[in-house]
Amino acid sequence: MSINLVAKPEDRGNLIRQALRSLRAGWQGIAGARYDAAAASMRPDLPGDDLEPLRQQMRACLEGRGGEVSARARAAALGRAYLTLDPTGRERFLRVLAVDFDIAEAEVSAAIDALKAAQSLEERNRTRQRLRATLEPPRVKLLTQFNSLPQGIKFLVNMRAELLPLGRKDPALALLADDLRVLLATWFDVDFLELRRITWDTASGALLEKLIAYEAVHPIESWDDLKNRLDYDRRYFAYFHPRMPDEPLIFVEVALVNGMADNVQNLLDPKAPPQDPKTADAAIFYSISNAQRGLDGISFGNFLIKRVVGELSHEFPNIKTFATLSPIPGFVHWLDLALSEGRPGLLKPADRKTLTALGVTKGAKGWLRQTLAGSDWHHNEALLKTLRPLLFRLCAQYLAREQRSGGTALDPVAHFHLSNGALMDRLNWMADRSKRGLRHSAGLMINYRYDLAKIEENHELYRSSGKRALSPGIRGLLSG
Amino acid sequence: MSINLVAKPEDRGNLIRQALRSLRAGWQGIAGARYDAAAASMRPDLPGDDLEPLRQQMRACLEGRGGEVSARARAAALGRAYLTLDPTGRERFLRVLAVDFDIAEAEVSAAIDALKAAQSLEERNRTRQRLRATLEPPRVKLLTQFNSLPQGIKFLVNMRAELLPLGRKDPALALLADDLRVLLATWFDVDFLELRRITWDTASGALLEKLIAYEAVHPIESWDDLKNRLDYDRRYFAYFHPRMPDEPLIFVEVALVNGMADNVQNLLDPKAPPQDPKTADAAIFYSISNAQRGLDGISFGNFLIKRVVGELSHEFPNIKTFATLSPIPGFVHWLDLALSEGRPGLLKPADRKTLTALGVTKGAKGWLRQTLAGSDWHHNEALLKTLRPLLFRLCAQYLAREQRSGGTALDPVAHFHLSNGALMDRLNWMADRSKRGLRHSAGLMINYRYDLAKIEENHELYRSSGKRALSPGIRGLLSG
Amino acid sequence: MSINLVAKPEDRGNLIRQALRSLRAGWQGIAGARYDAAAASMRPDLPGDDLEPLRQQMRACLEGRGGEVSARARAAALGRAYLTLDPTGRERFLRVLAVDFDIAEAEVSAAIDALKAAQSLEERNRTRQRLRATLEPPRVKLLTQFNSLPQGIKFLVNMRAELLPLGRKDPALALLADDLRVLLATWFDVDFLELRRITWDTASGALLEKLIAYEAVHPIESWDDLKNRLDYDRRYFAYFHPRMPDEPLIFVEVALVNGMADNVQNLLDPKAPPQDPKTADAAIFYSISNAQRGLDGISFGNFLIKRVVGELSHEFPNIKTFATLSPIPGFVHWLDLALSEGRPGLLKPADRKTLTALGVTKGAKGWLRQTLAGSDWHHNEALLKTLRPLLFRLCAQYLAREQRSGGTALDPVAHFHLSNGALMDRLNWMADRSKRGLRHSAGLMINYRYDLAKIEENHELYRSSGKRALSPGIRGLLSG
Amino acid sequence: MSINLVAKPEDRGNLIRQALRSLRAGWQGIAGARYDAAAASMRPDLPGDDLEPLRQQMRACLEGRGGEVSARARAAALGRAYLTLDPTGRERFLRVLAVDFDIAEAEVSAAIDALKAAQSLEERNRTRQRLRATLEPPRVKLLTQFNSLPQGIKFLVNMRAELLPLGRKDPALALLADDLRVLLATWFDVDFLELRRITWDTASGALLEKLIAYEAVHPIESWDDLKNRLDYDRRYFAYFHPRMPDEPLIFVEVALVNGMADNVQNLLDPKAPPQDPKTADAAIFYSISNAQRGLDGISFGNFLIKRVVGELSHEFPNIKTFATLSPIPGFVHWLDLALSEGRPGLLKPADRKTLTALGVTKGAKGWLRQTLAGSDWHHNEALLKTLRPLLFRLCAQYLAREQRSGGTALDPVAHFHLSNGALMDRLNWMADRSKRGLRHSAGLMINYRYDLAKIEENHELYRSSGKRALSPGIRGLLSG
Repeated sequence: MSINLVAKPEDRGNLIRQALRSLRAGWQGIAGARYDAAAASMRPDLPGDDLEPLRQQMRACLEGRGGEVSARARAAALGRAYLTLDPTGRERFLRVLAVDFDIAEAEVSAAIDALKAAQSLEERNRTRQRLRATLEPPRVKLLTQFNSLPQGIKFLVNMRAELLPLGRKDPALALLADDLRVLLATWFDVDFLELRRITWDTASGALLEKLIAYEAVHPIESWDDLKNRLDYDRRYFAYFHPRMPDEPLIFVEVALVNGMADNVQNLLDPKAPPQDPKTADAAIFYSISNAQRGLDGISFGNFLIKRVVGELSHEFPNIKTFATLSPIPGFVHWLDLALSEGRPGLLKPADRKTLTALGVTKGAKGWLRQTLAGSDWHHNEALLKTLRPLLFRLCAQYLAREQRSGGTALDPVAHFHLSNGALMDRLNWMADRSKRGLRHSAGLMINYRYDLAKIEENHELYRSSGKRALSPGIRGLLSG
Repeated sequence: MSINLVAKPEDRGNLIRQALRSLRAGWQGIAGARYDAAAASMRPDLPGDDLEPLRQQMRACLEGRGGEVSARARAAALGRAYLTLDPTGRERFLRVLAVDFDIAEAEVSAAIDALKAAQSLEERNRTRQRLRATLEPPRVKLLTQFNSLPQGIKFLVNMRAELLPLGRKDPALALLADDLRVLLATWFDVDFLELRRITWDTASGALLEKLIAYEAVHPIESWDDLKNRLDYDRRYFAYFHPRMPDEPLIFVEVALVNGMADNVQNLLDPKAPPQDPKTADAAIFYSISNAQRGLDGISFGNFLIKRVVGELSHEFPNIKTFATLSPIPGFVHWLDLALSEGRPGLLKPADRKTLTALGVTKGAKGWLRQTLAGSDWHHNEALLKTLRPLLFRLCAQYLAREQRSGGTALDPVAHFHLSNGALMDRLNWMADRSKRGLRHSAGLMINYRYDLAKIEENHELYRSSGKRALSPGIRGLLSG
Repeated sequence: MSINLVAKPEDRGNLIRQALRSLRAGWQGIAGARYDAAAASMRPDLPGDDLEPLRQQMRACLEGRGGEVSARARAAALGRAYLTLDPTGRERFLRVLAVDFDIAEAEVSAAIDALKAAQSLEERNRTRQRLRATLEPPRVKLLTQFNSLPQGIKFLVNMRAELLPLGRKDPALALLADDLRVLLATWFDVDFLELRRITWDTASGALLEKLIAYEAVHPIESWDDLKNRLDYDRRYFAYFHPRMPDEPLIFVEVALVNGMADNVQNLLDPKAPPQDPKTADAAIFYSISNAQRGLDGISFGNFLIKRVVGELSHEFPNIKTFATLSPIPGFVHWLDLALSEGRPGLLKPADRKTLTALGVTKGAKGWLRQTLAGSDWHHNEALLKTLRPLLFRLCAQYLAREQRSGGTALDPVAHFHLSNGALMDRLNWMADRSKRGLRHSAGLMINYRYDLAKIEENHELYRSSGKRALSPGIRGLLSG
Repeated sequence: MSINLVAKPEDRGNLIRQALRSLRAGWQGIAGARYDAAAASMRPDLPGDDLEPLRQQMRACLEGRGGEVSARARAAALGRAYLTLDPTGRERFLRVLAVDFDIAEAEVSAAIDALKAAQSLEERNRTRQRLRATLEPPRVKLLTQFNSLPQGIKFLVNMRAELLPLGRKDPALALLADDLRVLLATWFDVDFLELRRITWDTASGALLEKLIAYEAVHPIESWDDLKNRLDYDRRYFAYFHPRMPDEPLIFVEVALVNGMADNVQNLLDPKAPPQDPKTADAAIFYSISNAQRGLDGISFGNFLIKRVVGELSHEFPNIKTFATLSPIPGFVHWLDLALSEGRPGLLKPADRKTLTALGVTKGAKGWLRQTLAGSDWHHNEALLKTLRPLLFRLCAQYLAREQRSGGTALDPVAHFHLSNGALMDRLNWMADRSKRGLRHSAGLMINYRYDLAKIEENHELYRSSGKRALSPGIRGLLSG
């Protein structure tokens, strides 16, 4: 299992159509029609002349002009207008929000002075609250008001997805994206989410289509491939927000099998006969994907895995093993770099002997880099046999020893599962022969095991001291 | 229509039972069982010895010990323990939260210093965010984690309901209550709420029972009374939160009639024949009640009224008049005070003449106070006839002229509807002969009219200059 | 548990309103409006002049004039017209159906002749089918077409409820009622029904109100009484038809307790503390009521009890005893008659001795009849003590020995449960002190036990040989 | 639009799995397990030795041995056993039902004698009912009991689908199939069905897959093709039975367009831009398919079309034209036969002149047959231009004049729509260039128009006198 951090761009047409058509019923709808006319006069690229009217509309929203109901209607009209803008226009719109409705430094300073001058407890409390208020940018209120759009919460998630790349170049937009993160993190509190099992018999065509689009760990090739992943010896779970009922936030795919899975192509083979899940003793999490780019940095994966473990424990008391079958996405890249830098100790004397047997007498490092960069080395059985112990050892080293500043695991997938309290259990040879599997992981995959009795302890050790939970097998590879 | 600001105490047994029994599935549930044992050792009144273990549990939650999933399980166990405490124990529990997990002043000071020292834009941004973070008390994270309880959001709403009275005596608890207000205001964003029409054919016994309990404007006397309010010439709407689907937040009762309603007993008479709502030309909002004390200060009434106006406009195109039939809850109290203080100009020469005709030759003010304080003056037709113009004028004065500091209407119901953009339309004589109606409103009621074309303008005038929208009729009474 | 065979008259207003207003969408609706005009010209009492037009409309339905869709629209209009008739009009309408659209004797005779003349197998098959067709009255097609009314199936059930009393005086209407029985028996096939658990949290006010109205075994006194019967140590199940989703067909009330229940007032006491159903070892069926008079003769009780036994076995594995607590509705009536007729052997010498102790030296039979007819004998403890063995023995005799022609049990409730395969388990003294309980059952109640391992055998013995399954206790009373 | 009379064979695995696994809860389930053991001993081909035990089980069902609940459990076990049989075994099973549980001739005769001897009205009624009962084969009760299977109604529909071809060779099985028809016709009364709109956003993968499988008029090529037919300028409606909620019975596909559609490939083109349905003025029914072979002879098409017309009229008041775009499936076959038989008058002198211009001087009939049998004549523009008036005239003649014995239209699709009251409106040239379209309809298609004001009249004229409603255009072709 790996975590797909970048969702594919989704079709936004539907959202726009809904937003433009279905005004909410009520006074808000009545007022909305009026404000739409004003907003509709904006040109797609939002040239300079359109900015001042835009600022005025935004100001009216923040002041609650005409009452809060009208203010929300006005904000929704602005949101609808935003959807009609082109990328240039949207960036300008966002910059107005970011720059013109930012924190007022003077107010912050005044509030700091007032706090310093405060004497009584009551005064200190009051001035602290005042200071805190001055530190929240006014635009946050407007962001909240966009919730009035039909599917307003999805609108904001998408807005953040657009902001994230822009924010890398523009600090003001990065701050705006962060305001959205704070707001969305509160709204997407994990305990508001609902876990749904997705099945072929109940999920709509529209939802199934999204699963195909959002999957990025092991791409879904066809409707038959998808149907196979929803067969009765499989489970597919996703988190949803009650106000975004048709949009999965994150989903996980599980195979119910006997014994620890060691090959993902076997798992995904539609021709493999399904087995009776009642007799399975292992649940293998083989894919987990984040579906909403706009929720980057708001993490549900840890919760999802453990909720699903709970659900499956309940439904299938026979299942004793909960583990992943995960890629090692940074392995080849790291190895290539280490070899090119001539990191000492990578190859042992025994390795050189083996390589000599293959006719590689010198330039072993270069030869290895070149071999792995090739596309057909995995067809050569003799080569595979020779490389197996070598790559196992190097990969174990990469996973168990390599670290970022701060001491966490270099491999992002490893870091995710170790943080969740999992144990590195077993490396699997030629477990993913897909192009991507060969290119990034040299065909290797790893099982991370979730042992309920040890999750907390593993987590604490990893967090406090960086210590990684390793199986005896992995330890053996390191010392071997 | 008046706004019932204080919900009746509800039966909390059900919530406790649910919380104690149904642990959530998943790892959280598994961990939860363990933490429950720890939490269960607390004694109901939470004596001094129990406080330090409590603090440790809370700290473990904030630190995310064992991982975030475990932290939430631990918080939920604390929440379940809270439910088993007696009032003394609960107050102590809340004080620990309020005092031991408050803002750290030293960190605030340090962050202020860092902000002052910041040079670059980037540094200023970063230190501002740091300052802001120090101003958010750590306990807020724990409050959020309570959301892990089944019906966690209802748990927090109830916790705030308990905090509000305690906060009046204890500033620390008042601050805690305010933290909860901020959190709940975000979670209960009006655009997350769903408007539901409540009908006899669809609402459950449990929900109907709550409507009876929560109604406070015109108490529901029996199941028949309730059924009558749900008849096909009536409408009953409520807002719900998606995670509190069985708990109305606020509800409004509407009668579909011909012409402006002028008497609430007639409206509520179960023997009155229902009329075909297709032929009605007026929708009278005769009761609106807030159902959750713990959401005080988070206002939905304005939105609810306008959403319902929109729904009804759509369903019944014939309806031209949207208005309330509201009590004037502060009238008698104000009049009594004004008379006892001898406010000049209350009684005009003409009044004295009329009173003389009744045999009241001197001490008119005292006589009037005494009469209204009595319980049977409304049976005396001659008296009623004499008092009618007098009370009409005084009541118009009270509603249209009397003000709080700040210039808003003294009467709280008047202030609510004027803020929403309504117009004071008509006073109705002997419109509420119930005990409460006589005692507080001298039997008078008023119609506030919601004229869609003028709502925004009315609102803005009232807000900016305190100007109240008055019908010619009300104006006439003032000048009369 | 007894079976309530007569539902209380229900409010039919709602049905009429629906039928009159909501024409189905589509061409049927369009045509329907036209036909309604024709049907609307009928006068409420359907005088002679209106009969021929009615016959013509009916004939047009049977001929499918204008196509089948139009025919159904026309039939629905006739159904709506029926609902506007007064009792006289309805009887005339039904008589037209019964008399003018009956089997054609001449066609039957011709078909019989054809069958007799048939030579080949093929011809015999064909003529048999023809004969069968002639024996189905044409009106059955029209009855089927009434299904086009909104809630058409409920319309037909109600029509049969009206026909049944009329049929007792008029054989033609009895035949019509029987046509309806055959049609409804097919449509209400037990495997189309859905079993629903009814709870306070999910059932609508409208449904709950019907439960109150339809209950006849132990009348529901108030909404609190009803709520108590839906508490979490109770279960309330009902069968529904998918096209009559708001109308229970039959329902059963169950208490989850420890040990066999022996007193119905204790079971129904709202102040009795509920117990945790997980610890219960017995499920007591204390009331079962048929809710639709129009389905008389179409039996669901047997299926309902066994489905519910299955559901409860699954939910509560601890429950070992499934039994009823039932009235003995014919006991006092039978005893009174037997005493008045001087049936020999009713009183034994020992009885007379006991009665002498009470001062009853002669006229024991008359005295006993008078005593039981009185209203306060159950307050006299000495009397109770004396009567107990006597009434136990007489009641056991009534239940276990008395029979109708055919050998089935005289008591209707006993017959129902014995037919279902239950065993007569235990008589309970002063188990129902309600007026009705004293008047009909002398305060006695009986437990019928459903022992899953013996149900089939008990049923077969009772059906084939009239042998009744008795517990040793009941046997002891008989021989005592 | 044509009517697909033969559904593709569906995957029955799911049904079997469900039937075998999920026994119903309750006593029936408990008993079911026992009976399953007995039934499970049958061998797949049901050899002679297995027949007598089978007969005994069936007899036990009919006698209600062990009570009705047990009898249903036993029948369900037999049904599950049936599903495990191979085709030979199934045919033998069905023959036992057909032959051993048929009408008893002796009872019929006795009942006829009793009827003849009856004197009183009461006796006549009673003996008629007795005769009628003897004419219903006992097996019908067993068929009804199969309803106890999960999805029992679907089981019976499938059983009839298997019986229909067998019945063509075996009259006993044909009679059994007819028993099923009668039972299913009652259960599938059109007013029990629910019309559902099927959309991409709500229909499950499993349902969508069935739509692909069951479509036979214009085969669905891919999931994209299907999605296009569910786009927002399309409508897809189906009838469902409440107890077969995942199985469409019949479905219709509609395009909302401007003007009468004249080409089906254009309609189905996924690249054609969708139009705003609010502006459409015509609803074109371009495909209607029966999905359940086992319901052959139970007709819903007429109702479906008119319900959908009603729904669309309501949703889109702008739509004035309701019409089909239908194939003419018998045209080429008829023409070929007519030409080969040398039917006089087929070709007119003018035709011969035109053909001469193409170089066809003699053997015109043979030439024409050969041309139409070819696969590429439609690419020859000159040829097309010449043939157009000729084929138009011949096709009009085929549709409007050719008849079966009884006077109904020879073309089955024409007969269906004329029976429904539609009018033959317009022939369209090269309207279906698919292989099937060319082979059967020579590329022609016809619009049948549903004019609400004339449907009844058209229907009656066609039914009573065979008169077909023709547009002036079609008339013109006939006289041309």
